[in-house]
Amino acid sequence: MAPLDQRSVTITDDFWAPRREQVRTSTLRQQERQLRAPGQQFDALRLTWQPGDPHEPHIFWESDVAKWIEAASYCLATTADPELEASVDEAISLLAGAQQPDGYLNVYFTVVKPGQRFTDLRDAHELYCAGHLIEAAVAHHAATGKTTLLDVMTRYADLIDREFGPGGSCEGGYDGHEEIELALVKLARATGERRYLDCALRMVTARGQRPFYYEAEEARRGDTGYFGGVFPQRPRQAEFWREYNQSHLPVVEQSDAVGHSVRAMYLYAAVTDLAVETGDEALAAACDRVWESLTQRRLYVTGGVGARHDIEGFGGDYELPDARGYAETCAAIGLVFWAQRMANARRDAAYVEVLERALYNGVLSGASADGTSYFYGNPLASDGSVHRHEWFGVACCPPNLARLLSSLELYAYAQGAEEAVVNLYISGSARFDLADGPLALRVRSEHPVDGSAELRVTEAAPGPVTLSLRIPAWATGAQLVVAGRELELSEVVADGYARVRREWAEGDVVQLRLGMDPQRVWAHPAVFDTAHRVALQRGPLVFCLEGVDHQDAVAQLSLPRGAVLDVQDDATSGTVALLAGGSAVTGAADRSAPLYGTEPPATRAADLRAVPYFSWANRGQSDMTVWIHEMDQA
Amino acid sequence: MAPLDQRSVTITDDFWAPRREQVRTSTLRQQERQLRAPGQQFDALRLTWQPGDPHEPHIFWESDVAKWIEAASYCLATTADPELEASVDEAISLLAGAQQPDGYLNVYFTVVKPGQRFTDLRDAHELYCAGHLIEAAVAHHAATGKTTLLDVMTRYADLIDREFGPGGSCEGGYDGHEEIELALVKLARATGERRYLDCALRMVTARGQRPFYYEAEEARRGDTGYFGGVFPQRPRQAEFWREYNQSHLPVVEQSDAVGHSVRAMYLYAAVTDLAVETGDEALAAACDRVWESLTQRRLYVTGGVGARHDIEGFGGDYELPDARGYAETCAAIGLVFWAQRMANARRDAAYVEVLERALYNGVLSGASADGTSYFYGNPLASDGSVHRHEWFGVACCPPNLARLLSSLELYAYAQGAEEAVVNLYISGSARFDLADGPLALRVRSEHPVDGSAELRVTEAAPGPVTLSLRIPAWATGAQLVVAGRELELSEVVADGYARVRREWAEGDVVQLRLGMDPQRVWAHPAVFDTAHRVALQRGPLVFCLEGVDHQDAVAQLSLPRGAVLDVQDDATSGTVALLAGGSAVTGAADRSAPLYGTEPPATRAADLRAVPYFSWANRGQSDMTVWIHEMDQA
Repeated sequence: MAPLDQRSVTITDDFWAPRREQVRTSTLRQQERQLRAPGQQFDALRLTWQPGDPHEPHIFWESDVAKWIEAASYCLATTADPELEASVDEAISLLAGAQQPDGYLNVYFTVVKPGQRFTDLRDAHELYCAGHLIEAAVAHHAATGKTTLLDVMTRYADLIDREFGPGGSCEGGYDGHEEIELALVKLARATGERRYLDCALRMVTARGQRPFYYEAEEARRGDTGYFGGVFPQRPRQAEFWREYNQSHLPVVEQSDAVGHSVRAMYLYAAVTDLAVETGDEALAAACDRVWESLTQRRLYVTGGVGARHDIEGFGGDYELPDARGYAETCAAIGLVFWAQRMANARRDAAYVEVLERALYNGVLSGASADGTSYFYGNPLASDGSVHRHEWFGVACCPPNLARLLSSLELYAYAQGAEEAVVNLYISGSARFDLADGPLALRVRSEHPVDGSAELRVTEAAPGPVTLSLRIPAWATGAQLVVAGRELELSEVVADGYARVRREWAEGDVVQLRLGMDPQRVWAHPAVFDTAHRVALQRGPLVFCLEGVDHQDAVAQLSLPRGAVLDVQDDATSGTVALLAGGSAVTGAADRSAPLYGTEPPATRAADLRAVPYFSWANRGQSDMTVWIHEMDQA
Repeated sequence: MAPLDQRSVTITDDFWAPRREQVRTSTLRQQERQLRAPGQQFDALRLTWQPGDPHEPHIFWESDVAKWIEAASYCLATTADPELEASVDEAISLLAGAQQPDGYLNVYFTVVKPGQRFTDLRDAHELYCAGHLIEAAVAHHAATGKTTLLDVMTRYADLIDREFGPGGSCEGGYDGHEEIELALVKLARATGERRYLDCALRMVTARGQRPFYYEAEEARRGDTGYFGGVFPQRPRQAEFWREYNQSHLPVVEQSDAVGHSVRAMYLYAAVTDLAVETGDEALAAACDRVWESLTQRRLYVTGGVGARHDIEGFGGDYELPDARGYAETCAAIGLVFWAQRMANARRDAAYVEVLERALYNGVLSGASADGTSYFYGNPLASDGSVHRHEWFGVACCPPNLARLLSSLELYAYAQGAEEAVVNLYISGSARFDLADGPLALRVRSEHPVDGSAELRVTEAAPGPVTLSLRIPAWATGAQLVVAGRELELSEVVADGYARVRREWAEGDVVQLRLGMDPQRVWAHPAVFDTAHRVALQRGPLVFCLEGVDHQDAVAQLSLPRGAVLDVQDDATSGTVALLAGGSAVTGAADRSAPLYGTEPPATRAADLRAVPYFSWANRGQSDMTVWIHEMDQA
């Protein structure tokens, strides 16, 4: 299965379409201003920086430009925007101007550390930047048909292929921050050049082999690397820091989700691609094992990924702290990338469940309602000290969010030779390009507010085609009516999809009703921080209690297990809130009370109001918790 | 009020005496082996290290030697141990040999960075090491009468006094890690030389004045300092890093307990001393404000101090995370130092309550039952991954614990001109040196196992003397019988002491019965991590649930509010355990169960067994929690 071409899909619903328009008209403009600020990314590409000048170019900066071009390109694929297109062209000409005669393209190693290219793969993010530029080039070419950036990046990719190929100066090397691998797969697919795929495969295969590349590299270089001072490479910690960038074991021997989460997600996305492309079962099995580790023991209920701040990454099994957890926006986005590839590789909606959970919760929470401020980490609870920021020194999350939302078409549908797959129900249209001709659908849905969806066939080629409709795990009841006839779901559902095979005709209508009753969700009892607590979910949305809605500290609220959960419109999120009667331990605001005492605190009845997690922190700073204390659990 | 001379007190009880003997016969020997290991502290004092050699002397190393000498000296004050005394003499001769002709004494700035002394006060711990050596010198002199180390350190202190005095090279300077201040007060008291006290006062007064000394120092030095790479001194973080070492404000303007906890505790201990010595009310008021901030909003129920790992220090108000908290052993020890000075300055047992809470819980937990392994941090909950270590790279805690336990005499009693104060009830004896002559007591007590104490007068001078007996806040009922007559406590208790003024005679017996019923303790509802949970206390001991005693995860256990708490002998702690019937959410060990689900987890009845917090992690690794979930709170 593969995603549809972006321009074969339209998204016109009330939930996603305004967010996507906001990305184009606001977020990307804001980001562009940052990139264009004096001494920042655009200026750096002019290569005029000299030692002693202010604004030393940062090792990550190409990736900021790249993700911005990529997101802008996705916008341009579906919406004419000559001003944005001109800016993209300007950025591309700057990149072209920064490219060296031999194809190399990296500002930091051109002006700050000339002569040291490819000597600090572990820390310096050189191929990470290259990978993002390649993704941008592929997206730009697909959106505009122009080859300006693609030409630049194929030249650079050819250089990389030589240097990292047999006999190259970096043979056996691989980047400390994975990204180039999935980018090279995209480049191979976009150009039809198999050698880029082979290059990605070489890097994935080299990863974690002994002797360890980074040890040899460090010995050759003679210093501790770009981050050597930040991450002490003490001998007894060597294994820890190998896990940090997933080089502790050969990839085919890896089983646990470990280390820096974004790196891990990007790696396994590429490995999934490569397993599909090569049919390598050992690579596929590694993906299965790590997927299970991640989703069965190391994933937040919001789809957030990464328990630990110190490594921006995974903790141990069931280590999922809420207030002090991490759950970087970029990592949840990386999970969406990986889950999409797993779903398409395995034709199984179980992967879409995870994709959707991350997308509607841990990803979307990354941006404010107005699209101008961002969370880097997305904790599941807060004492009131957490708020979104306008920009970050390491500005990875905002443009990453922009490129995901502006390419949402690629995640809502998939297609095989004779199968049209609907993964997410979003008003708009989709035109599947199947072996025997097109199948086009017009979709009407109010997800995630309402569980109904109507799909109308607007074009159909003759011959039978399977329409696979995802029946989400969150559905509290489902009813499927195809061309006026109700189907018995138990007879047609497999792997999470209702698979309806028939000769479709223009005007055929599919009506799908998915129950969206509020649900209580409990975590595995081995999770320390969720003991005696429950989360609320409705459809794909996970909810939270926010201080602004309550008189008492949200950690002090309790929800009786039997309490009815009422649904109410919610203006801030544009979706719904959940209401229930509960109780509260009072007195959190009384600063005269002693810190410890032998008198039990007082309680009172309290009305609980839960709002979608993605929408929290849009009404000022207050405390928040996803996991709600339960009363009367027995 | 002042502590008694150490040799006026004996400690012979079953709880403390064996621990103190363990310090002398095991802990100090283990520490000595570390100090004597090739290339370590003793070797460093020979000043033979040269650039390129292994084992570069560490900036902290004198403090390790110093705390070891200090602890050994306290042991020698009460117990003859010629072997230990010979080792101490050897260490002192090494120190004397390392002293420079002008009195300077610091290995790092003699052999690693010669010519750079006193140029990195913020980071380099130079006066911190000097302070510990001075404390060691004072203790060694008091214990042995020898002046070998005291002579070395008065010469060094004279140099410091000149350099930091008017017109000196470091005028207006102060150390980033406070310690020298309290040490100079001790030196002034031991030598009768007022100038050391004035030097300490100058440093305390200079602290936090503008322009900031450390900014001028950094500008003069031209680099970011010893820890510049570890603690980025970004401009917007300047205030944060000033708070880190309590230099954000002049001391007399400080109000909140902020920054690195050990530094804070050592600072305010010295400020309390200086307020007493000078009668400066502004210094006393600052101590009062910070004490309230600490004890009313930033103190763990165990007496642990410091919520945050990243700065080894304080978080915000009510920020007291349990599993991810810090609570360094040394900080709790520092709190004992400060609390003792506050209690003696204010003649108020409220400060002893805090001292005792820290001592019996957050301090004592720092060492294993066999006295050979140590916690650096003392979290109030663990998922099972926490255990004690044999030694640390920064080995501050083990010798700190040793010097506190071996000088416990100084914390159990205090004396004024006409008042004998009993703060802690420990079997043994005390001889108060009062204005009109001695008052000697023989004490029998089984604290913290049993609440009774008997004090028998063994020597008394004529004339009335006030015997002040602390009535602890934890006492569930108290009965005081003096020479056969029961006193009405409400008539004699003030500021937490039963003050009995009479002409004492040899043979007089005071019987004090303190109730030690188990108690439930609740935290202020603003504390996020303790919501819906209760702690258990009996006498001065705070309890915890340990996984090794339970079939289910301790976080999943619940204690009904009405459940009776039974007391049972406990072999591991040598004290008692508390038992109660409760319930458990089961299934934490079932790894096949899904991470999230809509089926509520199962529960079952469970017997809860709580053991003293100080004794946890002595029976293998398992999970632990001080704060126990409550059922049926309403």
